[in-house]
Formats: sequence, C-alpha cells, structure tokens
Amino acid sequence: MYKAPVEEIAFTLRHVAGLSAALANGRLGDLSEDLVDAILSEAGRFAGEEVAPLSPIGDTQGARLVEGKVISPDGWVDLYKAWCAGGWNGLTGPEEFGGQGLPHMLNVATLEMWNSASIGFTLGPTLTIGAIEALMAHGSRSLQERYVEKLVSGEWTGTMNLTEPQAGSDVGALKTRAERRADGTYRIFGQKIYITWGDHDAADNIIHLVLARLPDAPAGTRGISLFLVPKFLVNEDGSLGPRNDLFCHSLEHKLGIHGSPTCTMIYGDGRFGEEPGAIGWLVGEENKGLACMFTMMNNARLAVGMQGVATAEAATQKAIAYARERTQGRAPAWGGAASSAQAASGMSPIIEHPDVARMLVTMKALTQGARAICYACAHAIDLSHRADGEEARHFQERAALLTPIAKAFATDVGVDVASLGIQVHGGMGFIEETGAARLLRDARIAPIYEGTNGIQAIDLVVRKLPLSTGAQVRGFIAELRQVAEAVAASNRDGFGETASRLSASLDDLEAATDWLLTRQAEGALAEALSGATPYLRLFGLALTGAYLAKGALADAAHGAEQRIALCRFAAENLIAETAALKDRVIHGAASLAAARVLLA
Amino acid sequence: MYKAPVEEIAFTLRHVAGLSAALANGRLGDLSEDLVDAILSEAGRFAGEEVAPLSPIGDTQGARLVEGKVISPDGWVDLYKAWCAGGWNGLTGPEEFGGQGLPHMLNVATLEMWNSASIGFTLGPTLTIGAIEALMAHGSRSLQERYVEKLVSGEWTGTMNLTEPQAGSDVGALKTRAERRADGTYRIFGQKIYITWGDHDAADNIIHLVLARLPDAPAGTRGISLFLVPKFLVNEDGSLGPRNDLFCHSLEHKLGIHGSPTCTMIYGDGRFGEEPGAIGWLVGEENKGLACMFTMMNNARLAVGMQGVATAEAATQKAIAYARERTQGRAPAWGGAASSAQAASGMSPIIEHPDVARMLVTMKALTQGARAICYACAHAIDLSHRADGEEARHFQERAALLTPIAKAFATDVGVDVASLGIQVHGGMGFIEETGAARLLRDARIAPIYEGTNGIQAIDLVVRKLPLSTGAQVRGFIAELRQVAEAVAASNRDGFGETASRLSASLDDLEAATDWLLTRQAEGALAEALSGATPYLRLFGLALTGAYLAKGALADAAHGAEQRIALCRFAAENLIAETAALKDRVIHGAASLAAARVLLA
Repeated sequence: MYKAPVEEIAFTLRHVAGLSAALANGRLGDLSEDLVDAILSEAGRFAGEEVAPLSPIGDTQGARLVEGKVISPDGWVDLYKAWCAGGWNGLTGPEEFGGQGLPHMLNVATLEMWNSASIGFTLGPTLTIGAIEALMAHGSRSLQERYVEKLVSGEWTGTMNLTEPQAGSDVGALKTRAERRADGTYRIFGQKIYITWGDHDAADNIIHLVLARLPDAPAGTRGISLFLVPKFLVNEDGSLGPRNDLFCHSLEHKLGIHGSPTCTMIYGDGRFGEEPGAIGWLVGEENKGLACMFTMMNNARLAVGMQGVATAEAATQKAIAYARERTQGRAPAWGGAASSAQAASGMSPIIEHPDVARMLVTMKALTQGARAICYACAHAIDLSHRADGEEARHFQERAALLTPIAKAFATDVGVDVASLGIQVHGGMGFIEETGAARLLRDARIAPIYEGTNGIQAIDLVVRKLPLSTGAQVRGFIAELRQVAEAVAASNRDGFGETASRLSASLDDLEAATDWLLTRQAEGALAEALSGATPYLRLFGLALTGAYLAKGALADAAHGAEQRIALCRFAAENLIAETAALKDRVIHGAASLAAARVLLA
Repeated sequence: MYKAPVEEIAFTLRHVAGLSAALANGRLGDLSEDLVDAILSEAGRFAGEEVAPLSPIGDTQGARLVEGKVISPDGWVDLYKAWCAGGWNGLTGPEEFGGQGLPHMLNVATLEMWNSASIGFTLGPTLTIGAIEALMAHGSRSLQERYVEKLVSGEWTGTMNLTEPQAGSDVGALKTRAERRADGTYRIFGQKIYITWGDHDAADNIIHLVLARLPDAPAGTRGISLFLVPKFLVNEDGSLGPRNDLFCHSLEHKLGIHGSPTCTMIYGDGRFGEEPGAIGWLVGEENKGLACMFTMMNNARLAVGMQGVATAEAATQKAIAYARERTQGRAPAWGGAASSAQAASGMSPIIEHPDVARMLVTMKALTQGARAICYACAHAIDLSHRADGEEARHFQERAALLTPIAKAFATDVGVDVASLGIQVHGGMGFIEETGAARLLRDARIAPIYEGTNGIQAIDLVVRKLPLSTGAQVRGFIAELRQVAEAVAASNRDGFGETASRLSASLDDLEAATDWLLTRQAEGALAEALSGATPYLRLFGLALTGAYLAKGALADAAHGAEQRIALCRFAAENLIAETAALKDRVIHGAASLAAARVLLA
C-alpha cells in the first residue's frame, strides 16, 4: 500500500526546488517551515490511509452512467466530502473566498500524494482548481462572488470543456456555438468530448468552463470565447435554481482512470429548460477565450506532470516492497562479498539480483528527477506571482520554460516506471489484483491529455526556447553548470564521475539548444520540429542529473550517502543517453524527411 | 483492421533471414518458392479475415470459468476448428503423424500473422506446437504414437506446466510431487499456476506436460522430471477414457490476452478417479525433465518474440491508418516545399507533422528490425536440424545466441511500439474501442513469460556469449561488419551515414562483448550481470541496423528506395543509442553497486 514519502517531498521542496530560500527571503508571506511540515504530513496520512484504499474499487467498478446520472464508485462520494472537509480543496484557493492562499508548491506536493493514491479521484479536484484560477484571473467580480466560494469549499466542482471530435490538439477548429442574448447571457449549443468529471454525484453543482464560438467570430483560435455554464442555474442568493440545458450523453470506456467519469457533454439540445440552449456567462472578453483557457492549461499541465511523478512513486514503492519479499534463484556475490540477504531456502530476495536492482534504482532516479523538475516549475510559478518586476518576469519565463518539460518528461517517466514496476513483479505484474498493471493503465493517459507530449515538445522548441531571445534558456543552463562545478569542487569520492558526466550532458543540451534556435531563426521549422521530442527528453534527463546533484550537495545529514549514490547512478547510467538525443536533434531531421517516402 | 504484410514477410524470410539461400542450397528439401508464397498468402488472408475480427470479443468477453468448465469467447471454438481444418496447426508437425514438416521459418512467419490478429487465440496452438516438439524429441515411441497425431491435427491441445507460486524464474524450486506406480505410470500431486490454455472447450482433450519431483530426486533443477498428464485418459485404441484427476481451479484476471485462459491447475486432489493422483507418463528420463523442457522453451521463447513483432506490426498499421485520416493543425513545410497533403479545412493529416512522422517511422524501423532478428533465429534453428556436422553445430550455436535477443528485444519492441501507437492516436488511443490500448495490454505479458527479459539477458551473457569460447559471437559480429562494408561499397547516396553509423554500433557491440567475456572470465559475475539488460538492447539495436541494411542492399526492385530510407533512419536516429548502452555495460556496474544502499 502507498505510503506518502513525506520527508523526500519536503526535502525536494526545500533544498532542490527553492522553498527554503523563498521562505528565508520572505517571498511566501507568513508561511513557516512548521506549517509546511504539518500540511505535508497530514496530507500524506490522508492520501495513504483514506484515498489509496478506495483506488481499487474506482478501477474495478468505475464511474457508471445510470438512467442519465453519473454514479461514483462506492465510497467515493463520502471520500470526496471528507477530503473537502479536511480543507484540501481550498489549499491554494483565494483567501477572500475561503481558501488558504498557500503557494503553488504546496498544491503540487499534495497533488503528488493524492495522485499516487488515485489519479481518477484526484482528477475532479484538479479540474476544480483550474476553474478557480481561470475565474480569479479572468472572471468578472460578480461571477467570482457567485461561484468561487463554493468551488473553493468543494461543494461545487469545475470542468474544462475544450475538445470536440474534430478539435483536439487544434482547439481552433472547435464548432460549439454561443449566441448572445439581450440580458447579457449567452446560449451555448454543441458537443464536447473527453470532459473529465463532466457529470457526477459527489457535488451539488458542476461549473463548466466551455470554449465556444460566437456567430461573428473570426476563424481559428482568435474567434474563441470562454463561458461559464453551470449544471444547475444559481439564484441571486446562491441557492440552486433549475437544471441548465446540458447533460452527459455517455461515458468513455477507457484503458485506465476508470473511477473518473470521462463524459461526452451535450449543450443546448433542449432536454432541459424552456427553450433550447445552455445558459452561459462570458468569462473575460469575447474572442479572447483562448488566453483565459491558457491560464487553466498551464497549471493543468503541471498538474498532469504530477500524475506522472505520482505514478512513478507509487510504482517504485510497490516494486521495491515486492522485490524485498519475493525470493527466486541465488544472487551473485556483489563486489566479491557473499550476498548478505539470502533466505533459508538458499534463494535470494530478487532485490539482490543485479538486473532487478538496476530496474529499481532506475525507477528511483527517474522518479526523483521528475519530481524535482515539477516542483521547480511550481516554485517558478509561485515567484512569478510573489516577486516583483524583473524577478517576476524571470520566474514567469522560467515557469513557461519548465512547464512543457514538467508535463511531458514526468508523464513519460510515469509510464516507463510503471512498466518497469510490472516487470519487477514478473507474472504477478500482469495479474490485475496486484495493482501494478493498474498503475500503468492509469498513467498511460497522462502523456496524451492537456496537450500530447508531442505538443509539449513543439511548445518548448517554438515558444519557450526563444523567450528573451534565448537568454532564459541559456541562463538556465548556466545555473545548471554551477551545480556540476559544485559537485567537482566537493571532492567527494561517492560522486564518482558525476561532475564530468553532468557537464557533458549540459554540453549536449547547450549544443542542441543552439542548433534549434539557429534553425528556427533560419526558418527551417520542419527540421527543428523533427527534433522536438528528443530535445525535450534530453532537457529532462540533464535536469534530472542536475537536480539529483543539487539535492545530494544540499543534504549534509544522514541522507547524503543515499542521495550521492542515486545521483551517481543517474550520472553514470542514465544521462549518457543525452549524447544520442543531441545527435537525433541535430542530425536526425534529414533521415526523417527522407523516410517520409514510407508514409506516403 | 489488420492486413498481413505478406510481401514484407516473404522478403525478410528470403533476403534477410536466408530462406532463398537455404532453398538454393537444397537445405530445405523440396520446399519451393511458390509453396512459400502460397502458404504466406493464404495464412495472411485467414489471419486478417478470420482471426482478427474475433480478437475484440476475446478481449471484452474473455475466457470464463463456469461451473468448473472453461468457456471460450463466442466464436473462438469454431474459429479454432476452422483454423485446424486449414492445416495450420500441423504446418511444422512431423510428417509421420500427419504434419507437413515444413521449416520453422514458416512456422514463425505464420505465427507472426496469427499473433498480429490475436495473441490470446494463438497462444493455444503455440503451446501445442511446443508439446509436439517435446514429445518428438524426448517421448517414447508409444507416447508419440498415442498422442502426437491428434496434437498435430489440433483435435487435442498441449500445455506446459512449470510455474508454481514459489517457483517462477527459479524452476528448480518446484514442489509438485510424482510417485512411481508398479505399472510404470506415475501419480502427480500439486498445484501449477499461470497455465496457458490449461483448460478450455475448443478441443476434445488437453495433454499437459508437467514438471514434477520424484520422492528420491536430488534438490534443485537436477531433480525434476517431465510427465505427460492428459485431461482425459486415452484408451489403447485412441478413444477417450475417464477424466484424469486434474482440473482448473481458477482463472487469472489479467491486464490483457483475456481470451486466453490462464489457469491455476490442481493435480491429484482426488476430485476425479478412484484414488487421488493424476495419472502421468514419464517423458524422457527421470530427473532429466529440465532438458526436455528446454526443448519446448527455446522454441517457445522465439514464439513469444513473435508476439512482440506481431504486436508491433499491428500497432504500426493501425497508427499509420489513423494518422493518414486524422487532421489537426497545419504541418510545417518540409524541406522548404509546401506540404502537399492538406485537407480543405486547412488542417493537415497528422502524418504530415514531423513529430508524428518520427513516431511512425520509429515504429516501422523497430518492427522490421525485430522481425528480421526473429526470422534469422528461426533460420538458424532450421539449419541446425537440416545441415550436417560443423555447419549444424554452428547454426545450433547461432540459434542459441539469437534466441534470448529475439525473445527480449522483440517483446520490448512490441510494448514500446504499442505504446507509441496509443500516443499517435491521442485521446482516441486511451479509449478501448479503438483497439490501440488492447495491443499494449496484450503485449505487456510478452517481456515477462517464458523467462523474463532480465532472465533472457542473463542467459545471453552467461551461457551464450561463451559459446565456442566467444568465437560464435565474434564470428557473428564479423558477419555484420561485412554488411556495413557492403553499404559503404554500394556508394548510394540514399544511405547517408548508414555505413559509418552501423560500423560505430558494431564497435560498441564488440567492446561490450569483450568486456563481458573478460569480466566473467575474471569471476566478476555481479558486474557482468549488472550490464546484461543494456547489453541485450545494444545487441538488438545493432542487429536492427545491420538487418535493415542487408534488406536494403538485397532489394534491387521497386522497394529499394523505401528500404534504404528506413535503414538510414534507423542508422541516423535509433542506433546511436548503442554508445550509451555500451557505456552502461562497461561503466555502469560500479554506480549500481554503490546505489544498493538505496535498496537496503
């Protein structure tokens, strides 16, 4: 069973992502180290003891559509209410509407725990947080006053309605219509697919944020507006009025996250209300909906990255526990010494076998790396809001740069580590009751939604590398080089070749970055995009090496030996791949272009 | 829907794996090119038109245990009978018992097609083929005469009973007991798990080959004997007698291959028969059961490798078809020219996007590479039986060397390519109805069973590299170098950097091989085993590069341009990874040993 790695999470927040420095600099108000510890420790308890036990039923029973109503898995409604009662839904919510206004780093850290316990369950609150952010950033004061408090308390939940059958990655292709009404409201007509928690029975109302197109709107992404469309209309006094003209038409039958209802939503077909049309209110300005949606999407992308970290953590815990118990064969003596742990049968716990140990340490290293990247991204988001002027701008860019890496690298890690977790279990890994397979099934969506990982890679190359004409990414690489130099200066044997390996990976990163910026400047977009995915992977691996080293250097206490050993393993076993990735970025496009003859 | 790539399969058999040369040399009796074509083409038709359509019901309905009987998915029993009536079950079976005695290459090629259509369905016949091989190699004449004909016709099926809860990879730990009886038979008592097609309703009888231990047997693998234990006892005249004392206790609830019943089998608990004990007949000699089982296992390992190839092929076909139809966004102009294929909407088919094209070409290259490796292994098996003296010994070693690579590399490719296939589908990939997710679920078992891929890597390093004191592997690498030289000599621009890239990968392979042989000779087993998995991957990638080049050089006809383009893509995008893999083999062990502190 999952046990939240509270210490590791706290350490990474403090010493790798920058929480301690931000606290010391007064950037995070009156937040104290003690409060951080209390929050993490209580969240860890709740995630492990309350949420995780209800994950299997979510998977086997799933969300069901019964007579037009979406029914949650047994126990989930009570779980959701207890979770809200614990104040978790409002952790980062605005204080004026009952939230605790805590930094995003704490949101991300607790999101990791909830998602390790159950991605399907956590998706609901994740979408609600996004809706709150969008309303606070772009909604009118009256919309905020009517909706935000109950979203913060969790009495109501939120959704994000972008996708339509013909409009996925290309959101500009959407066709859902919005018509203006004389009273300032709008009527929404159309079909949305893949709407997470689009309907359910855990909250009294559901506040849909829906992208739609006005009749006179320009084509493409410049003609999209965002609307708030509640399931139940809300009276002046905040009480619930009649049902709005929208409903969940069907649920998807998915590979994983079965407990999370993935809905096809129909707006405005006349099933409810006096005349057809779901009543909506404009959020932000007409035709500026995409900008509003990006507010939700950026944080949602990081939240999805956390699903990757969370799966990797849960899978690693499960695999290590199994590998300690399961005995098979006799492990070879390591380094000449007889193996210490050998069962009476003469068989060794499989954790003693080098190949199994390689899988487990790889899982640990990738998990920690992905975690550090995501937390660093959250830290940058926090400081982009809480610092001023140039510093705020810097962190805004840093967050923008890190977001696609956090989303795509961490979700790829989630899938890879979950798959390794199955492998460690052998035949048991393929049996559903073990739970290892569920982790892979649940994790497999994360590289797809909130912008496929291919889209993230394109975003990184096309929009993020050019920030400040490349100064942001170059400055970042320079920071990372300081870590490599500090490892070299530390003169600790345990680091092995870490300094030189990390330095070589950063050379690869810099060379690939320069090439991509140059090719784009020269207008060779297809060439640059051909290397986008390998480049993102290269960036993620180099960051993994650097952040593990940063943590190892920061730990002067009992954990140092372990951190140094993990960092060395990553440096000497994992990040050497950056050379091949750089090669793919710089030399791979020509052969890919030639190979298009195979796809004609 | 799956369409068997008959031409590609035939080409790979002939020009990459060596079928044409073997035919020309008269090594394959009176087999003709025409017969090969006829078999492949009819198998392709049957796989695509008859088997593939019944794959989804196998997945959704699954095999069910109802009142003690295992019921096949709707339509599967008729499908199985039609498949047997087509003669497919006896393709390589011994001619004296009604088989066609064809080379193993044809078995493997058709196995690919059946598995692309449905792994769950194909598992039944795959096990039967293994049982036939074991009985022909080790069974007494009377056992052969009583059982083989009906196994060849498919009226009866076969199983392989190795695993017990405490004995998986470590088969020597098994506890199932066998007791001698005065009449020369044995009584079997025990529990076996993960028994594929252990019970079902598609055939009249099921012939279990069961590993068990005699009371006076030595401990470990030297005390294991193999027994034939039929579900129904067989009378002198071949008719079926009473039920033997064995039954299927339960079916596993698995991630995939739902149509294939994975049974827990109970032997000898007294449910059937006059006294407890399942009646069995010794196959081979007492305490020599493991050698008999290896006969089944080696071919079964290659057959599992084919599941990887088959999944990769099916996933690639499905992804390409989707990527041609699905439009999203506007693809960049490739090489300065405007994209040719753009839908009227202004959106491009996603196949035009570089990142999607990269995924698809990667899928194609890995699929072809894995296919060539497996077919080459089958060719070596054929010649080990059909050549003489030194040549037979050489091919026996070649088959032994290639088997773990075929099994592990191909099944890893199956999982990776199936996962890429999901990614190409975007959100649709996560929806079960699309079928892309099923391919991943079905494929995920293949790296586990028949010896986990970790076990394959150990086998490769510990048992296969030392064959002929390393001369076998060194000779193989020398052969592969000739391919690189032939590419260089061909002077065709289309190959790009193929020659130098391939040559560099072979340098990596040679260096890693030398290091592993040396370290083992020095007794540093744990160090060598630490690099086993990266080494196997390195070998598989280098072979992929070499075999794609061999195919490209051999194709003087219309396919040459495509083969050269694919080969170049593999050389310039995929096999550069061998440098990092070599590094992991040679330098990775020290940091892995140090990182064991994390697992304590």
